Amino acid sequence: MSKIPWKADLLLAPLPAVLVSCGTPDAPCVLTAAWAGIVNSQPPKTYVSIRPQRHSYAIVRQSREFVINLTTRAMMRQVDLCGVRSGRDVDKFALCGFTPQAIAGIGCPAIAQCPVSLGCRVTDILSLESHDMFLADIVSVSADESLVDANNRLQLSRADLLVYVGGAYHALGERLESSHYTAQKKPDHK
Amino acid sequence: MSKIPWKADLLLAPLPAVLVSCGTPDAPCVLTAAWAGIVNSQPPKTYVSIRPQRHSYAIVRQSREFVINLTTRAMMRQVDLCGVRSGRDVDKFALCGFTPQAIAGIGCPAIAQCPVSLGCRVTDILSLESHDMFLADIVSVSADESLVDANNRLQLSRADLLVYVGGAYHALGERLESSHYTAQKKPDHK
Repeated sequence: MSKIPWKADLLLAPLPAVLVSCGTPDAPCVLTAAWAGIVNSQPPKTYVSIRPQRHSYAIVRQSREFVINLTTRAMMRQVDLCGVRSGRDVDKFALCGFTPQAIAGIGCPAIAQCPVSLGCRVTDILSLESHDMFLADIVSVSADESLVDANNRLQLSRADLLVYVGGAYHALGERLESSHYTAQKKPDHK
Repeated sequence: MSKIPWKADLLLAPLPAVLVSCGTPDAPCVLTAAWAGIVNSQPPKTYVSIRPQRHSYAIVRQSREFVINLTTRAMMRQVDLCGVRSGRDVDKFALCGFTPQAIAGIGCPAIAQCPVSLGCRVTDILSLESHDMFLADIVSVSADESLVDANNRLQLSRADLLVYVGGAYHALGERLESSHYTAQKKPDHK
């Protein structure tokens, strides 16, 4: 390959295209985010970065909790709408046909239509420049029953997740190998 | 969909499967990470979370710079090896056939074989519990020429990026719509 310098840009990919829900069951809000990730394994910690101008910002800042909802290819249009419309102008749950759904440990609602939801409690807020970063403990998870296999394992590969790459939505392709597959030990016959 | 509670876990997906390079051109190191993301847009800021036990940890902490290298499906085996082997025991650049490549603005090498590399300068280190989070400015980018289209735009969709979902590598699927496609204005005939 022959590489050339490129203008500094946000070229990390692939990223998740998640719906971040907040507010209350009676007044739920949601925004779309790709600036989200895992920051710590034990205990599980995540983050989402939100511009202070966003309607959801003040809600998350005040309640110190939110839900990260994974999204599917079939939800692409709703995911996009929740990124371009503001909760100041429209009830995005109603616009998208989303159902608020309780999730353990926190008071704000998950989105019933999303295959996996992570209930998050904010531990720290870092003010960066365009965005504030909300660091949070993942305190609960709910997942669609159809993702659980016969061995009681969650098969995220079945969820047809939406992927964000370089400013565009993509489908997820086929499952390849498990992580750490090159470390697999030979069978132990002792 | 019918959702059930699931044990709290690291179910955020999809995530990038990146190679984080550090060290010097003569003594390069690399580790695999999925705990990486964008945290701020203007200016572009990213992070990677690394366990203090990892060989690369002390190198990044001391030099305060690293490179995030995106990976492809064809590199899956090398990506996995760099996650299971330690730089204490083996020269992973040599093991994987990686070529150290200069990148603007920082002293540690990128990986020539990766389609996109982001040169990162550490601004803050947050000690969490299992991992430390290295927040960094993206100070430079290099990209493979083959990704640049006739309009001088970078087409990341062409890179056949590797995706990390629920403990397994996946291929990237087809490009769907651009972000914000639901906001497109009608043609202006004035």
